[in-house]
Amino acid sequence: MGVAVPPAGSDAGGGGSDSGPGPGNPFAGAESRPHVEGAFAREEVALANRNPGMPLEGLRYDVTPQGMHYLLSHFDIPEVDPQGWRLSVGGHVQSGLSFSLADLKQLPTRTLRVTLECAGNGRAGMSPRYPSMPWIGEAVGTAEWTGTPLRGLLEKAQPAGWANEVAFLGLDRGFDRGVEHHYGRSLKLEQALSDDVLVVHAMNGQPLLPQHGHPCRLIVPGWYGMASVKWLSRIELLDRPFDGFQQAVGYHYRKSAGDPGIPVTTLRVRALMVPPGIPDWYTRRRLLDAGHVELRGRAWAGSGVPVTRVEVAVDGEWRDAVLAPAGVHRYAWRAWSCPWEATRGEHLLQCRAHAADGSVQPMQPDWNTAGMGNNAVQAVQVTVR
Amino acid sequence: MGVAVPPAGSDAGGGGSDSGPGPGNPFAGAESRPHVEGAFAREEVALANRNPGMPLEGLRYDVTPQGMHYLLSHFDIPEVDPQGWRLSVGGHVQSGLSFSLADLKQLPTRTLRVTLECAGNGRAGMSPRYPSMPWIGEAVGTAEWTGTPLRGLLEKAQPAGWANEVAFLGLDRGFDRGVEHHYGRSLKLEQALSDDVLVVHAMNGQPLLPQHGHPCRLIVPGWYGMASVKWLSRIELLDRPFDGFQQAVGYHYRKSAGDPGIPVTTLRVRALMVPPGIPDWYTRRRLLDAGHVELRGRAWAGSGVPVTRVEVAVDGEWRDAVLAPAGVHRYAWRAWSCPWEATRGEHLLQCRAHAADGSVQPMQPDWNTAGMGNNAVQAVQVTVR
Repeated sequence: MGVAVPPAGSDAGGGGSDSGPGPGNPFAGAESRPHVEGAFAREEVALANRNPGMPLEGLRYDVTPQGMHYLLSHFDIPEVDPQGWRLSVGGHVQSGLSFSLADLKQLPTRTLRVTLECAGNGRAGMSPRYPSMPWIGEAVGTAEWTGTPLRGLLEKAQPAGWANEVAFLGLDRGFDRGVEHHYGRSLKLEQALSDDVLVVHAMNGQPLLPQHGHPCRLIVPGWYGMASVKWLSRIELLDRPFDGFQQAVGYHYRKSAGDPGIPVTTLRVRALMVPPGIPDWYTRRRLLDAGHVELRGRAWAGSGVPVTRVEVAVDGEWRDAVLAPAGVHRYAWRAWSCPWEATRGEHLLQCRAHAADGSVQPMQPDWNTAGMGNNAVQAVQVTVR
Repeated sequence: MGVAVPPAGSDAGGGGSDSGPGPGNPFAGAESRPHVEGAFAREEVALANRNPGMPLEGLRYDVTPQGMHYLLSHFDIPEVDPQGWRLSVGGHVQSGLSFSLADLKQLPTRTLRVTLECAGNGRAGMSPRYPSMPWIGEAVGTAEWTGTPLRGLLEKAQPAGWANEVAFLGLDRGFDRGVEHHYGRSLKLEQALSDDVLVVHAMNGQPLLPQHGHPCRLIVPGWYGMASVKWLSRIELLDRPFDGFQQAVGYHYRKSAGDPGIPVTTLRVRALMVPPGIPDWYTRRRLLDAGHVELRGRAWAGSGVPVTRVEVAVDGEWRDAVLAPAGVHRYAWRAWSCPWEATRGEHLLQCRAHAADGSVQPMQPDWNTAGMGNNAVQAVQVTVR
């Protein structure tokens, strides 16, 4: 277990190896993308072909079946030999460490049921729209994650007294807006020492699938998915804020290009419903029979903030849904249901959740430059016959 | 095993229960969709959010990992109770039968490794484009399917001497171009009696996932994916061609709206490569280092027709790739590789496969109204530094 390695060298301050736009960089012209309205570009469709959402009927499951959980991979899915793979812990620590997969499996184990959602979920509903993965609303899923608390690894490495941030680097590498980098994110040291941040090797009782971060990834419960770094290979203790691209440039709420913005962190409160009835193939419009319908869905909120109430509207008239008991899974979505006597004609169904911190879903998207955190109320148009 | 049930009634001739456009049908206005060029509609993006492709780096695996196989679901993924589920075999048979999942598992079992591809794969590359699921090239995957030969079920039911076609109905229901129907397809009786058509309950050694047809689906090796009906619930012997929507209207190669067309059946020959190097997030453009590169990919062709040759072109100069031995899996893709000494600059990489029947991939798509069977040569633009 834990073999000592030298502390990281010159790039320990940044924890990464980002290489910015410059004369030697063939993708240097790709720094920014203008916002668009209306129809979608081929690049957006190509990203949607690669990055699957969870079809909303998947909200029926407490735990999302394997392969139905949403996925967002910035670059290619790496090919990792689990025998050769190591996780290093270095930077501003007393003793740099390196763990094999077998080492990690011998450490104390926890399993947490966690709902993950992409920070870009709902991006396609913002106008004008940032050209990126065009999520409509399916970028969510819930899994049972098994691994060892990050805290234990950090304590073994003994962070220096002045260390205040922890960077997590994945094996996936590529370019974004002209900057070449391994995918990387960070947490403040006190966030990283939470009991519930896990370094996991199993999902739903099975080894991580390649596309979910095999052999090992981070899970940061209650945060948007970008924090849960896949294909984890390096943990770096820092004495200053991590300056990696995905931390310093990506994943901010910004109102304009020059706005320093607010970092994206925990999940915003949200409810989604299973669209009732049967669909038309192309338009996904819904048809159902008149009579009793049990509208169903799930609701969730950010780290440590319980959902307190879910409401459903039929044609703009709001009523309270029945929220399932909170149970033991504080980071997982909660089921809700609401009976409806459907009458013939066209109807608009909506749902909205409230959280214990007083937050409630907005009726319209809270616009920001990169299309982050759109938790506007879902609307489902149905025809009842 | 096999409980007798009455032969199907008035709809046995059609095997389905399609309900056409008419005054009682709220989606009757949706019969046809005009072709489009250029940018993509929100409906196309919504379908891409629901229907995942296999990221092309997945071509590295002999068997596609769980959850990375492409999926195309016409309607919602049904919620099926495996205890209550039954598979009926009826229509023009001597003895109508009904099988539980336990019944099926007691029948003789076979496992086949099969490459499936969506007939619409490559649709986004046709111009003008039919508005539907906008596949670029990722709608493919290979799995180990375990089940019992369909032939055994048919022999137990004893088809009438005049029966000549077999319809397969799924539990998924919805509308397409104004017609309400359960998803359904058929095979000619002699095709259905092939040894290799399976009624499967397991994929890669695990029970079928909900999205792959749980508890039971058909697998028709060598055919495009539309033949392998998911959530199978009813098999009907017919004395005439099946007139279900997905057989009679959908899945034809047509040159114009009035063209009766040619039914889509077996896979067209195709090679795809793993795009080498690392990507830019948004454009998916590739960057790689000068020097030795092993270009890799897979190739496949239709039922019983082996791939005989794969070629790779760098900047339009074609050379032969090394094709892996055929092995025992006659319905699975074959690996190929081709060394390349990459030199600095921009390069265009292409690959193309030939099959034993003399077929070879075209350089340009073979246009048809619904964007079916586009096996045009893949082109990958790379920057070498």
